[in-house]
Amino acid sequence: MNHNLTIALDAMGGDKAPGAVVAGAAMALDRRPKLKFRFYGDKEQIEPLLQKRKALVAVSEIIHTTNSIANDEKPSVALRTGKKSSMRLAIDAVRAGDADCMISSGNTGALMAMAMIVLRKLPGVARPAIATYFPHRNGECVMLDLGANIDCAPKHLVQFAVMGCLFARTVLGIENPRVGLLNVGVEEAKGNNDIKTAAAMLRAADLPGIYHGFVEGDDIAAGTVDVIVTDGFTGNVALKVLEGTAKLLFSFIRQTFRASTMAKIGYLFARGALRKLKMRSDPRRYNGAMLIGLQGICVKSHGSADGFGFASAIEVAADLAGNGFNNDIRAGMERLAESSKDIAPIKAASA
Amino acid sequence: MNHNLTIALDAMGGDKAPGAVVAGAAMALDRRPKLKFRFYGDKEQIEPLLQKRKALVAVSEIIHTTNSIANDEKPSVALRTGKKSSMRLAIDAVRAGDADCMISSGNTGALMAMAMIVLRKLPGVARPAIATYFPHRNGECVMLDLGANIDCAPKHLVQFAVMGCLFARTVLGIENPRVGLLNVGVEEAKGNNDIKTAAAMLRAADLPGIYHGFVEGDDIAAGTVDVIVTDGFTGNVALKVLEGTAKLLFSFIRQTFRASTMAKIGYLFARGALRKLKMRSDPRRYNGAMLIGLQGICVKSHGSADGFGFASAIEVAADLAGNGFNNDIRAGMERLAESSKDIAPIKAASA
Repeated sequence: MNHNLTIALDAMGGDKAPGAVVAGAAMALDRRPKLKFRFYGDKEQIEPLLQKRKALVAVSEIIHTTNSIANDEKPSVALRTGKKSSMRLAIDAVRAGDADCMISSGNTGALMAMAMIVLRKLPGVARPAIATYFPHRNGECVMLDLGANIDCAPKHLVQFAVMGCLFARTVLGIENPRVGLLNVGVEEAKGNNDIKTAAAMLRAADLPGIYHGFVEGDDIAAGTVDVIVTDGFTGNVALKVLEGTAKLLFSFIRQTFRASTMAKIGYLFARGALRKLKMRSDPRRYNGAMLIGLQGICVKSHGSADGFGFASAIEVAADLAGNGFNNDIRAGMERLAESSKDIAPIKAASA
Repeated sequence: MNHNLTIALDAMGGDKAPGAVVAGAAMALDRRPKLKFRFYGDKEQIEPLLQKRKALVAVSEIIHTTNSIANDEKPSVALRTGKKSSMRLAIDAVRAGDADCMISSGNTGALMAMAMIVLRKLPGVARPAIATYFPHRNGECVMLDLGANIDCAPKHLVQFAVMGCLFARTVLGIENPRVGLLNVGVEEAKGNNDIKTAAAMLRAADLPGIYHGFVEGDDIAAGTVDVIVTDGFTGNVALKVLEGTAKLLFSFIRQTFRASTMAKIGYLFARGALRKLKMRSDPRRYNGAMLIGLQGICVKSHGSADGFGFASAIEVAADLAGNGFNNDIRAGMERLAESSKDIAPIKAASA
């Protein structure tokens, strides 16, 4: 997975920019020595950080701009006033072919809006989506959409399934991912008409994976499937409930080991094992949500990501760019269109 | 909270019936000695279990029936063929005034369908909902709807807010609950038109609580609000994601303490504190989802509930029945209708 790639970085996005961006690039370079970087942002802030890292400075270029997108900027305003922003210039670099992919920890709505306008959709993709991956009981899984599309038609869910399978194949190495459609029950009669139509279309579709059927909310952590398909509203809520619940329980565990002297002694003995548990579910290892379905690789890192987390997001982007992910999506969409030629509702998807 | 109440029990519902039902009644009676019970189900199975418990047998009556609703029975079939079932007879008892409330661990869909037909909606309630409560960072909160209404209009969400506030007041003792509307972001511009309309209606409505605004999925565990209002699709997914994630993390913790000798020794020291952690988040303490908005108190217990869990569900039902919960709902709906007289979309709610 060590390709010659040029990575465009929004050096000013996120709560810890530009420090976390430079630190993350250094870590990613350590693991993938063929990478090159283009840092978009304030040269005065970036340069001193780069100078401390000899290996990194040798493969990096700074493209100076003082404009950046605020976290609370409305996407429409960012589109209009942010044409010289670090985020926008990094996206422009992908479009111009100066970089193979871009990563930003900045404003999600602005990133989505700009990427959509600048990079445009891949042929056959009706609705780009946001996809990410995280650990479950016995491995890892992909979920999409996470908020790009609040209301989705069945044909959109089917396209998400195709893109999600290819994402799982590229990022998680699962050759034939099992796909589940998130619902309020597993029986065929459950859910509204839209979700039942989507299920029927998924059963008939030629997917780069296997359609498993409906899954419920608790199937996510249980690892019932490799790809969870849902609309952007439900996916956004589900991911945040999952993250929030995990965060709460880890804080309960910390409290537990501070609750008494006996518990503190217990902690000393169990420390090694507890650290492994923490590492296993470290959200920084799962940082990097992709804006999937665009003519260019665009990865969103958590706004609060540190260097370790940002390095994970860089590696996700590098995996996708280095393995021709978007060519896979093109091919996947063609196969889907072919297989669904006779099913009226899907034909409309390419309109 | 020790009222003279008669409790109707579907003695045949759930995976551990009738044992868990009888054991749960005995535990609830221990804590609330003024309760009386009516057990609906197979006398041959129930009687020997009751005979072992002198205090319970003195306040119990068995109403014999051999019919019961299977877990996978379709609601429509249950309605047609289950008129003499233990579940149906327990609901009928509430309707006839022979019992103050009923509890079942059986088939949720069948319970909802039967309760709706037999008990009917409270005046002013457009859509009954399923509500439950669970622990968060600094207390407990209520969430609804959990699956009774897959698609909801804004006016329904506003009614859920009223019912949720009153549920939080009665069951959790929170006088002025803060209400959050579940969304994909907290900013006013987030979400689709329906959810924005619901937010505007909630701001204008006379609630038995305080409208906080939008909340996101991670606000649930963080305890940002006391009542979480959402449609039945999202609520069902959110609750199951929460339960599934908690279950997974507890299993990770168990694995962690078995991973090495050091960890096992650590467990011996931390055992007391870990037990407290387990107790704090024991789902059995939070067993009991209410079918809210009907002319009668009807509580659904988890299908897998044991005696301890079933006792919790009985106590929820007793709290609601003993404190005139449904009168509060009537009054709350009248206040809501009065306060929203000038807002067109809500007027339609009573139609």
